[in-house]
Amino acid sequence: MHHYLQINGQRLIGSLFALGELGALEGGGVCRLAATAEDKAGRDFVLARMKALGLDITIDAIGNVTGVYAGEEALPMVMMGSHIDTVGTGGLYDGNYGVMAGLEVIATLQEAGIRPRRPLAVTFFTNEEGVRFQPDMMGSVVFAGEYPLETALAAKDSNGITLDEALRAIGYKGERRPGDMPVDSYVELHIEQGPILDKEGTNIGVVTGVQGISWQELTLTGVSNHAGTTPMSMRHDAGLAAARIAVFARELALSLGGDQVSTVGHISVKPNLINVIPNQVVMSVDLRNTDNAVLKLAEQRLADFVATTAQEEGVAITSRSLVRFNPVIFADEIVNAVEEEAKRQSLSFRRLPSGAGHDAQFMASVCPAGMIFVPCVDGVSHNVNEHSDPKDLVAGANVLLQVVLQRAQRPA
Amino acid sequence: MHHYLQINGQRLIGSLFALGELGALEGGGVCRLAATAEDKAGRDFVLARMKALGLDITIDAIGNVTGVYAGEEALPMVMMGSHIDTVGTGGLYDGNYGVMAGLEVIATLQEAGIRPRRPLAVTFFTNEEGVRFQPDMMGSVVFAGEYPLETALAAKDSNGITLDEALRAIGYKGERRPGDMPVDSYVELHIEQGPILDKEGTNIGVVTGVQGISWQELTLTGVSNHAGTTPMSMRHDAGLAAARIAVFARELALSLGGDQVSTVGHISVKPNLINVIPNQVVMSVDLRNTDNAVLKLAEQRLADFVATTAQEEGVAITSRSLVRFNPVIFADEIVNAVEEEAKRQSLSFRRLPSGAGHDAQFMASVCPAGMIFVPCVDGVSHNVNEHSDPKDLVAGANVLLQVVLQRAQRPA
Repeated sequence: MHHYLQINGQRLIGSLFALGELGALEGGGVCRLAATAEDKAGRDFVLARMKALGLDITIDAIGNVTGVYAGEEALPMVMMGSHIDTVGTGGLYDGNYGVMAGLEVIATLQEAGIRPRRPLAVTFFTNEEGVRFQPDMMGSVVFAGEYPLETALAAKDSNGITLDEALRAIGYKGERRPGDMPVDSYVELHIEQGPILDKEGTNIGVVTGVQGISWQELTLTGVSNHAGTTPMSMRHDAGLAAARIAVFARELALSLGGDQVSTVGHISVKPNLINVIPNQVVMSVDLRNTDNAVLKLAEQRLADFVATTAQEEGVAITSRSLVRFNPVIFADEIVNAVEEEAKRQSLSFRRLPSGAGHDAQFMASVCPAGMIFVPCVDGVSHNVNEHSDPKDLVAGANVLLQVVLQRAQRPA
Repeated sequence: MHHYLQINGQRLIGSLFALGELGALEGGGVCRLAATAEDKAGRDFVLARMKALGLDITIDAIGNVTGVYAGEEALPMVMMGSHIDTVGTGGLYDGNYGVMAGLEVIATLQEAGIRPRRPLAVTFFTNEEGVRFQPDMMGSVVFAGEYPLETALAAKDSNGITLDEALRAIGYKGERRPGDMPVDSYVELHIEQGPILDKEGTNIGVVTGVQGISWQELTLTGVSNHAGTTPMSMRHDAGLAAARIAVFARELALSLGGDQVSTVGHISVKPNLINVIPNQVVMSVDLRNTDNAVLKLAEQRLADFVATTAQEEGVAITSRSLVRFNPVIFADEIVNAVEEEAKRQSLSFRRLPSGAGHDAQFMASVCPAGMIFVPCVDGVSHNVNEHSDPKDLVAGANVLLQVVLQRAQRPA
C-alpha cells in the first residue's frame, strides 16, 4: 500500500533552504537569474543531488536538465519538474519547490526499496522567469516544440549576451535535442502565487488548467491644453479616456464573473504636469480567463468600449496585442488523480485554475499534464517575503509522491 | 476726441518679433527663463525702448522694471504691464504683448502730442512664469506685498543659484522697495491662452477676474499582487482607485457647471508593470472656479468621493494641498471701461474669467485692476506654435490705449 509512504519533510525543507543559500540576497530572498553564475551554483547543487540518487542525467541543447530513476520496464517516463531560476528579488519556493520535492519523492521511494514500473524523472527547465532572456517559460516551450530552439538560443540579455553564450559559459549547453525523450505524464508541484488557498485555509489546490492571457497596449492621443483656460466641453483629454477604460476594465471582469480578471498595471501619461491636459497615455490591459470563448468576449467588449470612448472624448486610440495565450486545460486523469489523492490523505482541497504561467502549460501539449498547488502566505510571490508553511509544503509533496507513483505503476 | 487715436500696428507687431529674436529657438518660439542671459537681452531691449520714449525708469529689488511717462499732475500713475520672461518653449506673445503694447500706447500718445493728466507707466514683472524659480508671478506678488521679498530672492533654481544672485549677475537687482510707488489703476493686455475667443470669433475678452485655483496631490496606497492569480474581490488596486477619482473629477465639473473646470494632469503609478496590480499612485487634481463658494463645494465633494473610494477599494488615500488661490474679481470700473470701449470701437466682445494666473491678480489688491484678452489660435500657448492674428493684436492695443487714456485723464 504505497499511499502510506511519506516523504521526509525535514530533508525536503532543508534542501529548499540549502538551495536558497545560492544567490541569496542580503536580508532574505534569492536572485538566480537564468544562466548566471548564481544559476550555475543552483544547477550544480541540484545535479549533485541527482547524482547522489544515482539518476541518469541529461542536459539538452537549451540547458533543461532531466534526472531519470529507471523503471522496471523501458516505458515512457513519468516526469516531475519545474524551474530553479528566480526573478531578481525572488523567494525560496517558486519553482524550486517542485524540483526539490521531485527529488525527495525519488529518495523516498528508493529508501522504501520501491522501483516503479515506469521511469520516474525530475526536470528543471531553463529560464522559466524570463527576466534575463525573453520569452519566459523558454525551456519548456522549446521542449514542447512550440518555439524554435535557435530563436531561443539567440535571445540576448540587456548586455547583448545570447542565451547560447551564457549557457556555454556556465557549462550547461547540452547536446540533446529538447523534447527528445518519451514522456508519459507530467506533474508539477508549485506554490499558488495567489491568495486563494491561504485565505480559505485550503491545503491543496487541484489545478484545472492555466488561464488564457491577453495583454494589450493602448496608446491614447488627445490634445494638450491649459487646465485653467480650456472649458470642459473643448477638451480631448487622453488621461480621462484612459481612466474611463481602466474603470470599465474592472466592470467588465465583474460582469463576466467566473474567474475572469482584468488589470490595468501600466499607465504612462504625457506631459504629466498638474496644469496641462494630458495629450498622450500609454496603458496596458491584462485580461485572463480559463474559458477562451469568454476571454474573446472580454476582448471584444473592451474593443467596443475603447472605440466608443475614442469617439466620445475625441481622443485617438490604437491598440496592439503584446501577448495572447489560449487557456490550457489539464488532463482529467491527472486532475482527478490529484483530487482523489488529496481526499484520501484527508487534506482540504479545491479545484482552481492557475492565473500565472507555468512550464506545465507547455508540457500539456506533450503528454497528460497537471499541477498541484500549495498555499503561500497572502499570495505573495516574486518577492523576498515569499513564504509557505512547512506543513503545507510537506503535504503537497506527499500528494505528488502518490500521484506520480500511481502513474508510474500503471501497466503498459 | 482721443478715442479716434490709433496705435501703430506695424510698429507694435515689429517690436514683438524683434523681442522674439532674443532667446529665439531654432525652428520657432523663444526661451527666456527668468534672470538668464536671454532674459537680460530681452530686458535690455525693452529698456532701450523705454529710454527712447524718454520714460523715467525704475528697477526694484526683485527686478521689476517700471518706465513712467510723467503726467501733467503729480498723481498716482495708471500702469500697464505684464512680463517678458517665457517658459522653456514659449511663444512671442504671452506677456510680451502686454508690455510692448503698453510702450506702443505711450509712443502713440507722444506722437499725438498728448500728455495725460496722470502719469502713465509700463511695468514688466520678474519671473511670472515660475519655471526657473518658484513661485510663479513672483514679481507682482512681491510688488503687492503678498509674498516676502527676502523669501523670493532666496528662491533657488535647480542648480542652487538664488534669484538674488541671478538678478545681480544680469545687472537687474535694483534698490527700490517693490510696490513703493503710487498706482492709480492697472490694466494688463494679454492673449487669452485659451480657446474661447478664437472658437467664437470674438475680438475682445472683457476679463471679469481670475479663477480660484485648488491643486491637490493625492497619494493612493494599495497592495501589489499578481494580475493573474488575484481574484477581483481580493484586490486593493491603487490604479483603479485613481481612475475612479479621475472619472469623478470630470463628472464633478460637469455637475457643478458654470466655469468650473477640473483636470487630472499628473498620474504616476508603481510598480507600473503590466502584470502587477498597482500598489501606489500619486496623482494631481486641479480644480478652478471664479466663485469661491462653488470651488469650496467642489473640494468638499472631491474629498467625500475620495473617502468613499478609499473605503470601497481598501486603498489608503492621503491628500495635500499644493496651491490654493482664492478667485480674484476685477474692479467694475475697469471691467466696464473695457467693455464700453470694445463696444465703441465696434469690436465683438464677451465677458470671461481668466483660467490662468496673471500679474493682474496681485495688482488687484493694490489698485483697481483689470485685463483685456485677445484671441490666440486654438488656445495654444506655452508652446512655440503660439499665434495671434495681427489684426486681433492691434485691436486689443487700441482698446488698451483708450481705456488707460480715460483712466489717466480722470480729474484728481
